[in-house]
Amino acid sequence: MCPPKCQETVLQRLRTGRRGLMKAAGMAAAGGAATMALPKAPVRAQTAGSFSRVVDLTHTMGPDFPTFGGGVNLEFEDITVFSNDGYNLKRWLLIEHTGTHMDAPFHFSEDGQSADEIPIENLVAPLAVVDISAKAEDDPDAQLTPDDLAAWEAENGPIPEGACVAMHSGWDAKVGGDGFRNADADGVMHFPGFHVEAAAMMMEERSVVGIAVDTLSLDFGPSPDFATHYLWLPSNRWGMEAVANLGQLPPVGATIVVGGPKIKGATGGPSRVIALA
Amino acid sequence: MCPPKCQETVLQRLRTGRRGLMKAAGMAAAGGAATMALPKAPVRAQTAGSFSRVVDLTHTMGPDFPTFGGGVNLEFEDITVFSNDGYNLKRWLLIEHTGTHMDAPFHFSEDGQSADEIPIENLVAPLAVVDISAKAEDDPDAQLTPDDLAAWEAENGPIPEGACVAMHSGWDAKVGGDGFRNADADGVMHFPGFHVEAAAMMMEERSVVGIAVDTLSLDFGPSPDFATHYLWLPSNRWGMEAVANLGQLPPVGATIVVGGPKIKGATGGPSRVIALA
Repeated sequence: MCPPKCQETVLQRLRTGRRGLMKAAGMAAAGGAATMALPKAPVRAQTAGSFSRVVDLTHTMGPDFPTFGGGVNLEFEDITVFSNDGYNLKRWLLIEHTGTHMDAPFHFSEDGQSADEIPIENLVAPLAVVDISAKAEDDPDAQLTPDDLAAWEAENGPIPEGACVAMHSGWDAKVGGDGFRNADADGVMHFPGFHVEAAAMMMEERSVVGIAVDTLSLDFGPSPDFATHYLWLPSNRWGMEAVANLGQLPPVGATIVVGGPKIKGATGGPSRVIALA
Repeated sequence: MCPPKCQETVLQRLRTGRRGLMKAAGMAAAGGAATMALPKAPVRAQTAGSFSRVVDLTHTMGPDFPTFGGGVNLEFEDITVFSNDGYNLKRWLLIEHTGTHMDAPFHFSEDGQSADEIPIENLVAPLAVVDISAKAEDDPDAQLTPDDLAAWEAENGPIPEGACVAMHSGWDAKVGGDGFRNADADGVMHFPGFHVEAAAMMMEERSVVGIAVDTLSLDFGPSPDFATHYLWLPSNRWGMEAVANLGQLPPVGATIVVGGPKIKGATGGPSRVIALA
């Protein structure tokens, strides 16, 4: 989701197209044909899993939950109240991208899958948790890079087939304060995200179907161009933003179950995200 | 959720209190003390599970999804559109109890758990699927009774500890047509639900934490008093309405993962419900 001042950059991107995106992202694009060949997400072959522990990766969301744009994305209205009506019922006015929420492919594409169209097989996936909290503590603008993925694999073996890769930056602990958005005097936010080259590696050299972050955006806070959003989502891969409790999970071995909205045409939305470990 | 004409009944129930409820429901309540002793939901001890198959128990919901009250419970508004703005984003205006959705304890109680307060352990549970589709085909007002539970146990063994019990009436197949609400000329709906005595048995003699139906209400369509809602939900047990695809599951052996909303104070709401079998 775009604050007003990023709008111009986004429109510029639309004009230059994907080739411009790849160039802008500093990648060695071999030309239009090569960039067009970026693989769409596979549908996971359903595989066995087992668990003995349940971890809630979801923040509780209220009207005061911090948002990317800084405004209020959720309002409630009481329709009935128990003491008067015998039951409680509310209406929500809700902008899709708030709380722990999904970015569906359609959020950043013309014709990608909306939230309801993502194959259910891709919403239950082996979870690889990549801990970049040490470098994020030194630098709030840290990005998860191909080197971080390589280091993770050196420790834990190859990223599993059809995985979700989650960035654990420790940012979930900041959710109650200004440090979560971490905006500077100019309004530029500073928090970690996935580097576009890591996204490309997970698409081209691995078979990752989804990525999750414990911050407000798949891209790092000061991103001028939403490079990771524009590369990842149009490939029919999903993103999950503002997840919690990744620190309670092992680097590998858990399964993520993504309770994303099955709402027709949704660009994403509040999700219940559960890990089975 | 109550259409206008049930309001009077509900208010009457509030005036008579729980003792009146139990009496009205035809139960042998031994008095106020006994009825007060109805056990609150236990928090599940987390147990192991395994799976090799994923089944989506969630209907796709749009503004035309059938609702209990007959009105429209979901509207969309475009905030941005890709071709103009470089990304898609919508606002939802949504009444909580629509689509495949949770009834949180707070929906029918003064102080029961809201959707965000239900322990995560109780949202991942062994699933017992009770097939009453044969009798529902003969009688749309069929109810799932203690006899149905006893027959299920005779076939499948005891209902597992901390289970979710799901009523499979075959009603999910009707979701696209008028047969889902199945209202008669007087506006009274006809579809199956849980009998209050089955609810009492699952609370008192078993340790069930949630119930699910493939119809629009935990109570059967013509219920005059929402007896099952008023018994079940105040005990901090959850309900799930309008689930799909129960026919794809075995009677026992699957795990239900309830992606209910973690929205502060919610009385329930649209949920992604997934079975791991």
